[in-house]
Amino acid sequence: MSVNYGAPSRHSSHASYSSRYGATPRPASSAQYGAQQGYYGGGAPGYGSAPPAHGPPPGADPQLWQWFSAVDTDRSGAISVTELQAALVNGNWTRFDLDTVKMLMSIFDTDRSGTIGFNEFAGLWKYIQDWQNVFRHFDRDRSGSIDGAELSEALRSFGYNLSPILLSLLEQKYVASGPSDRYGPPPGITFDRFVRACVVVKTLTEAFQRVDTDRDGWVQMNYEQFMKIVLSAP
Amino acid sequence: MSVNYGAPSRHSSHASYSSRYGATPRPASSAQYGAQQGYYGGGAPGYGSAPPAHGPPPGADPQLWQWFSAVDTDRSGAISVTELQAALVNGNWTRFDLDTVKMLMSIFDTDRSGTIGFNEFAGLWKYIQDWQNVFRHFDRDRSGSIDGAELSEALRSFGYNLSPILLSLLEQKYVASGPSDRYGPPPGITFDRFVRACVVVKTLTEAFQRVDTDRDGWVQMNYEQFMKIVLSAP
Repeated sequence: MSVNYGAPSRHSSHASYSSRYGATPRPASSAQYGAQQGYYGGGAPGYGSAPPAHGPPPGADPQLWQWFSAVDTDRSGAISVTELQAALVNGNWTRFDLDTVKMLMSIFDTDRSGTIGFNEFAGLWKYIQDWQNVFRHFDRDRSGSIDGAELSEALRSFGYNLSPILLSLLEQKYVASGPSDRYGPPPGITFDRFVRACVVVKTLTEAFQRVDTDRDGWVQMNYEQFMKIVLSAP
Repeated sequence: MSVNYGAPSRHSSHASYSSRYGATPRPASSAQYGAQQGYYGGGAPGYGSAPPAHGPPPGADPQLWQWFSAVDTDRSGAISVTELQAALVNGNWTRFDLDTVKMLMSIFDTDRSGTIGFNEFAGLWKYIQDWQNVFRHFDRDRSGSIDGAELSEALRSFGYNLSPILLSLLEQKYVASGPSDRYGPPPGITFDRFVRACVVVKTLTEAFQRVDTDRDGWVQMNYEQFMKIVLSAP
């Protein structure tokens, strides 16, 4: 599965809006950074655990299979929301938000089984690595989190020219903590919330564009359409 | 501070829409249930912690002050996002989502200090208790979580007659885990996500109504208005 940054969904065509919203972000650098994947044990042989229900598919990347098996702690052959959330941590060791984990599941659970199989996992893994590169690129001050200015720059580079008011709302919504948290993690937007913020902007913008058929920047919609768009976004 | 269920914001007037969306939920029962507040130590005297920066205000409820002090673990005299998140757990002992904690902060941090002072805490505490009663009332099967049918019934009782499609989207968005999580928490919507789902429906509905000035169920809005409404919701 080939995945573009910030453009994980089915829709890859973009309108040339006056505000240029809707463009696809590009790869930033090749190094890994941001989120790390923790491997929590998971069925050591001879330790009372059930044997793996499934072996690697023929031709599977052995390293990728090893990662998959480490995340699949109950050896069911598929990764659940709970297993994925347990495996994903941010650079500051905070866990990914459930909403981000569910967003990742919904993007890559292409057969709608409710879990991530090995083939789906390959796409998910690459997607997270790609976002790590984006995150590293825009975390200019190497703080391990993204601030408002860095978020603005990232979105601008993806083609989303949001107004200062929208950027401020977005930052408030996705910032993990504030400067008032003396003993909390450093202020800023963690990796998982950065990915969610970008995907939310992309999803909402594309949904708006689909309603704005004459491309004048205005839409007419009823309550049902409005709620459907908003509740479908991550 | 007096707080109505599901109607914590400034806007208490409701239009008599054909679909009756926008009405204020009512108290359900008087018993407490759902979320519990854990008290994590918090500056035991003689244990190297700083003395309290602030004593209780004159006439303060001693029990409420004790709870406030227990949550204010750094003894700063105000509760941060991090402190509030550490103190709030669901009935199944999962932590409140950061987004729910930030939503609670934004509702009750009336002086916009970024923290919750003692007077603000009184309102927050009552609000959580009120929601616990609502949650208990609608958790008909006493499972400790809300399923789709229970969520529908709760929203209907609040006056939000959402379509089956919207109810399904809402359930998918706020459910904590699925039946596929064999070893995870039981499927369903936890207390904190139930509160967030209800407040999100309320916030979005009221925002839509404010744009729908002629009350015909249709709005015309531009990209900026649309994004502003969505990003302002919890």
